[in-house]
Amino acid sequence: MTQDRLKQAGDIARGFGVDGILVTNGTNRRYLTGFTGEDHAVDELSGVALTGSSSTTLFAPATNLPWAQSEAAEGVDVLPMERRWTDSIATFAKDAGWKRLGFEDATTSYAAWSDLRKALGDEIELVPVGNALDTLRAVKDADEIELLRTALRMTDEAFVAASKRIVAGMTEAEAAAIVVEELRNVGSEGESFPTIVASGPNAAKPHHAPGDRVIEDGEPVIIDMGALHKGYAGDLTRTIWFGQPSEQLVTIYSVVQAAQEAAIAAARPGITGVDFDAAARDVFAEHQLDHYFVHSLGHGLGLRVHEAPSASMRSEDTLAPGNVVTVEPGLYIPDWGGVRIEDVLLIDDESAENLTTAPKRSVHATIHGE
Amino acid sequence: MTQDRLKQAGDIARGFGVDGILVTNGTNRRYLTGFTGEDHAVDELSGVALTGSSSTTLFAPATNLPWAQSEAAEGVDVLPMERRWTDSIATFAKDAGWKRLGFEDATTSYAAWSDLRKALGDEIELVPVGNALDTLRAVKDADEIELLRTALRMTDEAFVAASKRIVAGMTEAEAAAIVVEELRNVGSEGESFPTIVASGPNAAKPHHAPGDRVIEDGEPVIIDMGALHKGYAGDLTRTIWFGQPSEQLVTIYSVVQAAQEAAIAAARPGITGVDFDAAARDVFAEHQLDHYFVHSLGHGLGLRVHEAPSASMRSEDTLAPGNVVTVEPGLYIPDWGGVRIEDVLLIDDESAENLTTAPKRSVHATIHGE
Repeated sequence: MTQDRLKQAGDIARGFGVDGILVTNGTNRRYLTGFTGEDHAVDELSGVALTGSSSTTLFAPATNLPWAQSEAAEGVDVLPMERRWTDSIATFAKDAGWKRLGFEDATTSYAAWSDLRKALGDEIELVPVGNALDTLRAVKDADEIELLRTALRMTDEAFVAASKRIVAGMTEAEAAAIVVEELRNVGSEGESFPTIVASGPNAAKPHHAPGDRVIEDGEPVIIDMGALHKGYAGDLTRTIWFGQPSEQLVTIYSVVQAAQEAAIAAARPGITGVDFDAAARDVFAEHQLDHYFVHSLGHGLGLRVHEAPSASMRSEDTLAPGNVVTVEPGLYIPDWGGVRIEDVLLIDDESAENLTTAPKRSVHATIHGE
Repeated sequence: MTQDRLKQAGDIARGFGVDGILVTNGTNRRYLTGFTGEDHAVDELSGVALTGSSSTTLFAPATNLPWAQSEAAEGVDVLPMERRWTDSIATFAKDAGWKRLGFEDATTSYAAWSDLRKALGDEIELVPVGNALDTLRAVKDADEIELLRTALRMTDEAFVAASKRIVAGMTEAEAAAIVVEELRNVGSEGESFPTIVASGPNAAKPHHAPGDRVIEDGEPVIIDMGALHKGYAGDLTRTIWFGQPSEQLVTIYSVVQAAQEAAIAAARPGITGVDFDAAARDVFAEHQLDHYFVHSLGHGLGLRVHEAPSASMRSEDTLAPGNVVTVEPGLYIPDWGGVRIEDVLLIDDESAENLTTAPKRSVHATIHGE
């Protein structure tokens, strides 16, 4: 698989007319080289890669060097990275006689660019390539789809186990701790992102850090969680409640559910991210609630929780077979609360397979005691 | 506390002759505004801040806006961040009549700088300020010291609990899972970094992802772990073994322990990071083993696992009261294994307090059955 990826990266380099591309995006580095080291931050990288038309090189600092050597995929050379890593890159590019060096400008710091500019001198041109390498990750290969299926199955199992233990009277933080415990119990590497448990008025915040608020009967409780499995991210949102749901919750929940169903029905290869998003947004608009849908419908899922393709009002993407995307409409009413429901779809040759199996609450069943 | 921090940031801005500083470093953003949102990556920030001589503003995207508003410290204004956040910054700076805008060049991407450059036009100059704001975090205030004490106590307790459960015959990955479980059991927010369990030859890698290797009797097992408490990072390394340690392990362990003791004795305000590092490195040199000490002696610890001041051969820092630094000498012998021992020191007015209480193995006691 790595050979295919390196070949595709080489094609991208040729497309930009560069001799190679400096890979500063840590997820692309992992995807192309197999090295699993995570970056602390953009000013503390665990390595950098150079992918050229005929070779790929991974540079790693002394502390990570044996680790990188043990993980690097076939066809990837591993070299030590100097303390100022831009010097290692400049030396390599000069020795190789390169004339144009591409770089990922969205993940290369201004300071690194500036150091590189000085180290390269006038002979080698620096060419921004945007997020061209990210696009490779949007279409998943068979191995990746299996890894994502497992990450999502673990996520769903952990949700089911956690939802049996979470009750009204607990704090959000206590409920989130249960989720984390169950994510471990199912054999995952842990959370793919910080778990959200947002109750009552806190559920009006799409993102929220679980705190000391006590969960009460009848109010919405948004749980947004994901298992991490061999680097691949699960992602799941459910909105639950205890006791009888309030009238407003019943109304809002039903509309969000209808919006999600409309979007799932619309998902297929060839639909634009804009139209996919609109399938849900239009349902909200019919109920004059679209101004409470403050985020996009969904995003690609893989080695990173948010990746291409995006489904939003401003998306420039089109869905294709092999994409794995979330479908997560939500409504957020200030001071009252909110509802979000999220599944994950695999776009296939004709339509989409829903990879999520976690049960959804039925407002109808709750009201009528079914 | 936040008021002091904002005032100090304002002083730094004045020192650079800028009207304000764009804060793209997520840790500095949290330190200055109180907003705990984490960045997914440099191309997916959870917010950006502008700290000026008289005001500080936090910009957050729609999904994070209510969360940011609920956490922002007194004196911090919260504004929505446009999809292209550089537009929000440019509009603000122009409206405020600024002429010079500082930016953290080590954490601002080239793409963001380029967008900002276009959006600001010719009237406003962009001035790189390096990591000037990071230096504020190097000296901990009383609140931070308490948080770090708690994070380190949790780390030590989790280590003691885990080391009672880890036995020879387990895989590294199983041992690491026990550490993670105990980090949760002590009430922390989880790991402050991915736990390392490196056994036998794997211990020759300073950084290593725990895998399927089975831990055997007599060989070194490096455990490097930390609890996260309210954003503050614990950090602890112990090298343990089961059964009788090999002769080489006894020798190497004793030298590392002596090197650490020498460094701890040398720690005091006014010592340079170079001299502090040398206190340990010189012990290794006496034994002709210094070429196996492939990393630096230590680093500051706080909201980030690695921060100022650094203790290394190339450090430009000097220790000062209020610094919290790790002291973690190690020796790594290819194919055989390695030993690292890490404590955390608080530099006080005269010397240093060792904040770490986790027990260390005694080679002597093991050999003589004491």
